[in-house]
Parts: sequence; C-alpha cells; structure tokens
Amino acid sequence: MQRWVRFKRHNGKTGYGVLDRQEIFEYSGEPWSESNEKGGSIPLSEATLLSPCVPTKIVALWNNFRELSEKLGKAAPSHPLFLIKPSTSLAGPNDPIIRPASYSGKIAFEGELGIVIGKTSRNVPLSAAANHIFGYTCVNDVTAVELLNEDVNFPQWCRSKGFDSFSCVGPAIATDLDWKNAHVITRMDDAERQNYPLSDMIFSPEEQVSLISQDVTLQPGDVIACGTSVGIGSIKPGAAVEVSIEGIGTLTNTLSA
Amino acid sequence: MQRWVRFKRHNGKTGYGVLDRQEIFEYSGEPWSESNEKGGSIPLSEATLLSPCVPTKIVALWNNFRELSEKLGKAAPSHPLFLIKPSTSLAGPNDPIIRPASYSGKIAFEGELGIVIGKTSRNVPLSAAANHIFGYTCVNDVTAVELLNEDVNFPQWCRSKGFDSFSCVGPAIATDLDWKNAHVITRMDDAERQNYPLSDMIFSPEEQVSLISQDVTLQPGDVIACGTSVGIGSIKPGAAVEVSIEGIGTLTNTLSA
Repeated sequence: MQRWVRFKRHNGKTGYGVLDRQEIFEYSGEPWSESNEKGGSIPLSEATLLSPCVPTKIVALWNNFRELSEKLGKAAPSHPLFLIKPSTSLAGPNDPIIRPASYSGKIAFEGELGIVIGKTSRNVPLSAAANHIFGYTCVNDVTAVELLNEDVNFPQWCRSKGFDSFSCVGPAIATDLDWKNAHVITRMDDAERQNYPLSDMIFSPEEQVSLISQDVTLQPGDVIACGTSVGIGSIKPGAAVEVSIEGIGTLTNTLSA
Repeated sequence: MQRWVRFKRHNGKTGYGVLDRQEIFEYSGEPWSESNEKGGSIPLSEATLLSPCVPTKIVALWNNFRELSEKLGKAAPSHPLFLIKPSTSLAGPNDPIIRPASYSGKIAFEGELGIVIGKTSRNVPLSAAANHIFGYTCVNDVTAVELLNEDVNFPQWCRSKGFDSFSCVGPAIATDLDWKNAHVITRMDDAERQNYPLSDMIFSPEEQVSLISQDVTLQPGDVIACGTSVGIGSIKPGAAVEVSIEGIGTLTNTLSA
C-alpha cells in the first residue's frame, strides 16, 4: 500500500510523490501514469500538501448509507444518485473553506470516502471496476444548505455544493484500503461529529464505478465522493473540520471566519 | 461580428479560426486568447467542424423562459436554476447523439442558446458581465427524460443530461448577437418543432453570467446553456435534430439508430 500526495515546494514548484513517514519520494508524473519514474526525495516539512489529484469533475453521491437513509425515511436507491461538482470547487489539505460573498446562511460539513479514478472508465463491468480505481482519499463535501431548497421546483444540488473550496480532498491517496473495516470520522474543533462504518454503504466502490461509468465517462484523477452518513452539521465560522479515514490520513479545512 | 470555429484538417490536425463564407482563417490560439496571431486559410470543404470550444463544464439552466414556465405552471425563479453537465458530454456539429447502452427510454432534444465564456468569471458585477462573454453558440441539451424522475427522492438532472454526446455545441461562436431579436429554431427531420424568441428569457445572458459567477467560477471556453422553451420532444432513432439561431448557424446532430 502506497500513499500518494501532490505537493508544492517552498519555491513554488509542484509535483507528485509517495509519502513514507516524513519523506516524500517524488515521481515524474501523475500517480496513475504508466511511465512514472522515481526521482529524488524531500522532507515533508519542506513541502505544502495540495489536493492529491486534480479532478475534471467530482461525482458526489446522495443517499448511499443505510443508517442515514433509514433516519431520513428514504428508500435505498436502485442506482447511485449523484450530482456533479465542478473542478473549480476543489480545495486541498489545510486550504480554507471560503464563505461565498453572496451567501450568509449555514455551511455544512459532510465527511466522506473519495474514490480516485485511475483509468478512463466508460461502461465498466463490475468485474473490472476494481482495476479502474487508483485509490481512496478523504473528502469534505461542503454544502450551502439553505440554498438547496430555496426554489420549490428545483433542488439546487450543483449550486449549493459547487462553490469554490467546497470540495475538500486529501491529504493522500491510499492505493489500498480495507474499506469494509474502515470508518469515516469527522471532527469539528476536536469534537467528534461523525463516526460511521464504510461497510454500511449501499453501493460499494466497485459498484459505484461500474454503474456511474454507464452514465458519465470518468477520467483519471476524477473523484467519486461516496456520500455521507449520520452526524452532518453546520460549520462554525473559524472552526476546523477534520475528516479522517485510517490508512489515508486526516484532511483538515477551516471555514474562513 | 466574427464567427469562430474549431476544426480538424483531413490530416487530423486541429485548430481555431474565423469562418468567412467558405473559408476558415486560422489563428494560433483559442479565440479568447489575447496573443492570438492570424495564420493562413483553408477552404471549409477541407475541414471538419468540431465543437467551437472545449468547456471544462457546461452550466445548463432550467426554467428560464416565461412561456414554458407559464405552461408548466412554475413560478419564475429568483436566481438562475442550473445543473452541471460534464466536459465528457460534449459533442460537435454532425457528431452522432449516442444512445447510452444502459438506457432504452425516450431521448429528448432541447434547442438552446449557449453563452461562451471568454474570461475567468468569479463574482462578476452585472455591469462587467458583457465583457466576460466571448460570444454565442447553439446548444442541443439532450436528455434521457425517463431517468429524471426515476427516484422519487432525487431528480437526476446530472445523470439524465450527462451522458457522452448529450451536450451538442456549435457550429460556430458568434462574437456578437442581437439576441433580443433572435429566435431559437429546432427542426427534427426538417419539421419545425421549436421556434421561440430569446427576448422571452427570464435571466438575460449578462444576468446569467453575473449571478452564476457568484456560485461557480466560470472558465474561458465554458458554456452556459440558457435553458429551453416550448416544443421539446423525443428524438426518433436515426432522426437529425437541427438547432438554428440566425447569426450563429445551424447545429445538426443525429440520434444513432
């Protein structure tokens, strides 16, 4: 199992590499590149971690955990229910979550597992789906919750979740994850707010990749945010939200005060 | 007024240029590039037209025409209602609309005006919005209509409109358009199906750019599909759908039989 990161040196140069304890071993290309060559290494302390991939889109699921589904009294879906978050909504580890200038309402955190796509995926059979998954990361799927139902005729999923900095991704991509035994833990200012098992997912990562690839073509570096479970809440101005998954790490982002 | 196109030569090389009657005058970069230099020219007959821009996303409006809004009995929105279509859904002039392998239901055409963004747009004031619009194109916002309400809890806008080839764009970008006096005309197999005035728009192009840029950052080449009006319908297998706007041209796409 490797943990891939993207990083910026103090001189501003960016790169991809494998994180091993406090050292980054640099590679010449994107993690999923087949012609990737190993370069030198730099100490983690001399780098700033960025989002570990640069997705062309983020596919974000709704209603993919049984416990939340039952709490909301919604039937489990027969196909993954998703919206698309734009590439411009991406934020990396420690980037601020920026309150939109036009919005003064509640902003919610949603701690989630992220699937990072490793190969162009179109109509992928379930048996081949694992081969299209490069790895897993943490996601905070931030939402301007009061916009969602502002118009009675049209739930504004893309608007309420599409603002700049509302797709926090990182800190690393773990190439293997025993997700059936992992939990997503979300803390706000050190208080635990979410702690749910990934085994409660309605559609497994492989099912998501297979089924969603029948709808939209997924590209290397694209992220599927697997949906959240119980415990979401609004972020206090200035509060730090941490999303942790064992084997991946902790993604921390603070709402601008 | 110029009409910009993107094209492929018979040798496979692609480029951007200005179309003047039957001749394309090539430029060195994207139409909105400030350092664009004029090159040679080639006859239109020696080129295949492609989508005139390559958007990172397509922002597609719902309920933006008064006549359709009234027909559906929906209140006019107070802010543009939109979904995001992925870059992978792009199709150019004469590209086939491909039926998804997983879907056997009705596929609808929606003839629309497309706004092509010329500058990175974030929190653009209304007074500056015109300056962020590079030009206008035709859009066929194709929809797998039977998926939209398949799940009672979650309207699947991104899924039903996000399939490969479901965002037909072209044939050209007109840098000026007297949209207040223009109509969108949609024909299927030569029979007129839509003919509606753009003056009936609820949010003008400038209002759309200003308001949407408060929600998502728009990038050069991104397209806003301004929404459709009355007359949409399902495409017969093998039928050609033409979307025409005077001053831009006619966008033709055929549903694969």
